Amino acid sequence: MINKINKANDYISNNKQNILDALFEILSIQSISSDSKYKPEIQRCSEWIESYLQKIGINTTKILPTEQNPVVFGENISAGPEKPTILIYGHYDVQPPDPIDLWDTEPFSPKIIDNLLFARGASDMKGQLMVALSAIQAINATSGLPVNLKLFIEGEEEIGSPSVDEFLYKHKELFSSDFVLNLDAGMISKTQPTIVYGLRGLAYFEVHIEGPQHDLHSGLFGGVVYNPILALSKILAGMVDENGVVQLPRFYDDVLPLSHSEKEKIKKLGLDDDYYMEQTGAKSLFGEIGYTPTERIGARPTLDVNGIVSGYTGEGPKTVIPAKAIAKLSTRLVPNQTPDKVKEQLLEYMKTNAPSQINWEIKQLSSDPACITDPNSFATKCFADSLEAIWGKEPIYLREGGSIPIVTHMQNILGTDSVLSGFGLPDDKIHSPNERMNLDVFWKGIETIIHYYFNIAESLYE
Amino acid sequence: MINKINKANDYISNNKQNILDALFEILSIQSISSDSKYKPEIQRCSEWIESYLQKIGINTTKILPTEQNPVVFGENISAGPEKPTILIYGHYDVQPPDPIDLWDTEPFSPKIIDNLLFARGASDMKGQLMVALSAIQAINATSGLPVNLKLFIEGEEEIGSPSVDEFLYKHKELFSSDFVLNLDAGMISKTQPTIVYGLRGLAYFEVHIEGPQHDLHSGLFGGVVYNPILALSKILAGMVDENGVVQLPRFYDDVLPLSHSEKEKIKKLGLDDDYYMEQTGAKSLFGEIGYTPTERIGARPTLDVNGIVSGYTGEGPKTVIPAKAIAKLSTRLVPNQTPDKVKEQLLEYMKTNAPSQINWEIKQLSSDPACITDPNSFATKCFADSLEAIWGKEPIYLREGGSIPIVTHMQNILGTDSVLSGFGLPDDKIHSPNERMNLDVFWKGIETIIHYYFNIAESLYE
Repeated sequence: MINKINKANDYISNNKQNILDALFEILSIQSISSDSKYKPEIQRCSEWIESYLQKIGINTTKILPTEQNPVVFGENISAGPEKPTILIYGHYDVQPPDPIDLWDTEPFSPKIIDNLLFARGASDMKGQLMVALSAIQAINATSGLPVNLKLFIEGEEEIGSPSVDEFLYKHKELFSSDFVLNLDAGMISKTQPTIVYGLRGLAYFEVHIEGPQHDLHSGLFGGVVYNPILALSKILAGMVDENGVVQLPRFYDDVLPLSHSEKEKIKKLGLDDDYYMEQTGAKSLFGEIGYTPTERIGARPTLDVNGIVSGYTGEGPKTVIPAKAIAKLSTRLVPNQTPDKVKEQLLEYMKTNAPSQINWEIKQLSSDPACITDPNSFATKCFADSLEAIWGKEPIYLREGGSIPIVTHMQNILGTDSVLSGFGLPDDKIHSPNERMNLDVFWKGIETIIHYYFNIAESLYE
Repeated sequence: MINKINKANDYISNNKQNILDALFEILSIQSISSDSKYKPEIQRCSEWIESYLQKIGINTTKILPTEQNPVVFGENISAGPEKPTILIYGHYDVQPPDPIDLWDTEPFSPKIIDNLLFARGASDMKGQLMVALSAIQAINATSGLPVNLKLFIEGEEEIGSPSVDEFLYKHKELFSSDFVLNLDAGMISKTQPTIVYGLRGLAYFEVHIEGPQHDLHSGLFGGVVYNPILALSKILAGMVDENGVVQLPRFYDDVLPLSHSEKEKIKKLGLDDDYYMEQTGAKSLFGEIGYTPTERIGARPTLDVNGIVSGYTGEGPKTVIPAKAIAKLSTRLVPNQTPDKVKEQLLEYMKTNAPSQINWEIKQLSSDPACITDPNSFATKCFADSLEAIWGKEPIYLREGGSIPIVTHMQNILGTDSVLSGFGLPDDKIHSPNERMNLDVFWKGIETIIHYYFNIAESLYE
């Protein structure tokens, strides 16, 4: 085994430029899923991936349509039925680059500066996807795959995978596997490998406010109508108190409390206030009293406003009372909250708190429950072993604040658990301007996955 | 006199198309003062006006530079020193057309539908300016001007006339006159002529909030940083209570109460809740208890938020905690409040109420005190007489909610009072999409001003 691993690693060393070239190609595609005008780029990206899979030795490939964006399927099961089958998960869609003027480089023209690769998707997750694919390429080019592989690469992750539910029911057989490898997570620092065993859910809404029938002059009508921005401000301001406690009715009723042992594990991570101050650049931290920052992110539900717009936002003054105001807001959920109950709570909050002088509407944009996976499964233990072999350090186990709905979908529909890890770093600025990936971590990530494909095939823990 | 008035009116009847052609020309110029990219259009508009003044018999004209946008000066004092000199005020700049997608026509391609002329500036105030100029044109073409006229046509009204203060000090002599005729106001209905004797002041600010150093992923960091939109919402929500009472410290301390006779006059206007519901299309009204809507608009100070923007505002969800949030807000002021004191009050409010976890900054965009003029002056009484002659109804006297800083500037710097009236209607949608002017009112307005130029020359009240 060691010999084959070394050969594959040598292949990587000798083909770094080729791999970077491919990475640059995929990062140049503007596969933004949240805005329908990028549909052609979504299509182009799925086609790019299919042809790339063929190139690296995934002999069966298909582009499968969904209600919205296609899923790329791939399969190489030449290792034989006695070997485990891994379903590799990935997504090729990315977040919008906004606010565009805060980028120091072009978001879709990748650029390496000081060994950091800057581009939208560099870390989340085209770069991570290329980690898994490069490992396949290296092994196929040197000795042949020791495990059976299937690939599920979707184009809707950044909008909450709305089509995936139905899609997975339809293609249950095609995607059957022993477990899922999902590298859409990250490490807590560039020397500390990390396995995620819990994820928060997400319920995302838009609040629409309508006041007067058309924009009004604030001099001629200021004093007789309820200003929609003011109404929206009052509504939003009341949703979270000054300690970060969400004020939707019964919001915390179903929240699973952290166990003592989980609290101890989180404590060991050693992520203190200073760590988060440095990561965020915030003046000071904010959040529920009685919980550490890591507990608040991983195991407590939160509510954030993600966008707001109304009235005149150009240069200079415009004395208008706008007719409408819109906010986007989302709650991160923990076990055992459900997005449906949260929607009910939000509607009840609105009924109680929205001023009577305005009309309002709530639109739900996405809805995914939280999930917890078993950190003691065979596949996860095996992954931990590979992480330790390459990084010289036992991984830590984390409940993470983000939401990866696909993990829950695959658990519920395919009955398959995920190994959730990855090589993103907290300061990769995913979803933000100047997203980047640390290339040292990228290459070491490939080494880890090469090790893992062999490691799982040798079934050390079976 | 009657003969000369009739001739001038006949001239108008015979030249309606020419006048509309000129009006269409000026309305096609995108002279938006709040956005510096329209500077060339501002320049073009000032040049168009200068050449038009020449055409209608204003023999001396100049384009005078200011710190920002040029003032067009015009003069015809051939009536002789024994006749009064009127300084005609106008502005050629307009509000931005945003939100542009709510226009049913192109804002800078004027269109007449059912005798309503749709265009940005149709009512505020290129249309009104053309009322004054068309009257000059008609008289010059038929009998010659019975009064001396000067014109002051500025390009900064919609941004609070920031350069005008200094400019008027510099050109005090040039703009000396007996009184100012300012048609930048309107009528309360299309059958009720109106004279405005009081205007609210305006203090306009931007509130800038900064939280984390860059946009953050709301999953990875939701629970540890104060969301800037939430911070801004709390700040704005606290500024006005549920009855519209402004919560800035000492905000009402200097407010001049309405006198009993003013309250009686306002009552006589008969503008009830239904009137304002119809004008605004609001579900129900809002504002200080104990005051009628007209009192609240004309004689009580108010605070409105005019714009807000932060985070992701495109289609679909984006799970971001934005780094920054911005709101535009303005207070309408009444005698004896001052913009400077309001700024102090706002800063004090921010110091007390802004969450400690964020940074904030206040920028002042404009600053103008309220004003009251004498409704019993010779010039105003004379104007009332002309209104009654043409409209068959005594004008009503109004304290209006808008701000026309120039009136105060001219009072303070030139020592000249203004006759403030005009032919805009409450449903002209000024500052809003689908701004329009009623052409019946426009033609009757010209007739009124023709009457007035003769009326004041005959000095009925002297």
